[in-house]
Amino acid sequence: MSATGQIFVLSGPPGAGKSTVGAMVRQNLPDLAYSVSFTTRAPRPGERDGVDYHFVDRQAFIQRLERGDILEHVEIFGNMYGTSAQVIDQTIGQGVDLFLDTDVNGGKALRGHYPQGVFIFIVPPSRAELERRLRQRGTETEDNIRLRLARVGYELAAAQDYTHLVINDDLNKAAAQVEAIITTDRLRTERQLTRIKREWGL
Amino acid sequence: MSATGQIFVLSGPPGAGKSTVGAMVRQNLPDLAYSVSFTTRAPRPGERDGVDYHFVDRQAFIQRLERGDILEHVEIFGNMYGTSAQVIDQTIGQGVDLFLDTDVNGGKALRGHYPQGVFIFIVPPSRAELERRLRQRGTETEDNIRLRLARVGYELAAAQDYTHLVINDDLNKAAAQVEAIITTDRLRTERQLTRIKREWGL
Repeated sequence: MSATGQIFVLSGPPGAGKSTVGAMVRQNLPDLAYSVSFTTRAPRPGERDGVDYHFVDRQAFIQRLERGDILEHVEIFGNMYGTSAQVIDQTIGQGVDLFLDTDVNGGKALRGHYPQGVFIFIVPPSRAELERRLRQRGTETEDNIRLRLARVGYELAAAQDYTHLVINDDLNKAAAQVEAIITTDRLRTERQLTRIKREWGL
Repeated sequence: MSATGQIFVLSGPPGAGKSTVGAMVRQNLPDLAYSVSFTTRAPRPGERDGVDYHFVDRQAFIQRLERGDILEHVEIFGNMYGTSAQVIDQTIGQGVDLFLDTDVNGGKALRGHYPQGVFIFIVPPSRAELERRLRQRGTETEDNIRLRLARVGYELAAAQDYTHLVINDDLNKAAAQVEAIITTDRLRTERQLTRIKREWGL
């Protein structure tokens, strides 16, 4: 019986609300660890290496990428940000549950590496609601909005590879549903028996 | 993709609190159906056939038992009470989720018949707490209390056949955990995709 922590991944198309819901879940379940990413960006005042990010130069980032440690990465304003398998393995190896939200490509990469994980796909309640949200942001061009709406079917198809699907028609409800999924995984008999046998002295 | 309802079974050793927790879950999730049992007991004033129980004579009950429709049964004061596979099949066949609590033998019979179901085992938090609860009832003999405590290891072993294990150290928390398990099953991608494809017109 293993006392390894679980990996919970929240993913979904842009506009589904995964970052907002993810932040709510982290606040409500503070015992969840998050994955400290590697980045080539310079630390900002107050940021600590190994806490906010693992700060590395471009050379070191590329080396991690080449040896397959960086499971997913994005480039923002010329800086690289990446999720490290080594960081995740260390965390769950200590029996700590890890939660992260990522885009659909990141979710796919993580699924390949952690098939035992819990993968939650979050979607907005309807095409009309997605369109409303994208317009409300005020930062999306008309072309971009049309592109994203046209991609809805494609992005929804990705849900089939996830273990759970949350329909975000209300932020509090969606966060509660993600929390229920996490709670339920912790109640799996295999995980619980380790705990109860210790507590009952069996 | 099936729109069949799910069967949720709450079971555990005597004194674990399954009836109390079960009643709380039913109150909090009123859309859960329960299984209307067959009984040979005469209807009490106000009880309706097919609602409170299916009232049958001893002969009809035995016939159901013989043809394997009664999955679990108990005899109380000479009256038979039984759970019918036909009743369960009709309910979940209509896409309705069904919840029932039963003893360990009943749980085993239901697992054999509904391997796709969600089976939740509930236990008290410790031997000491179980002993305290049994004594508090005031209805158990000293021999019965000793017997039940001696059976704890045997009864806990039964948990291994269940999908989830809830440790009842607080009634509200235990009920919330059972509800989380039910919510999570409803969020399985397979179940949700049926719903979202309808709602999104895909």
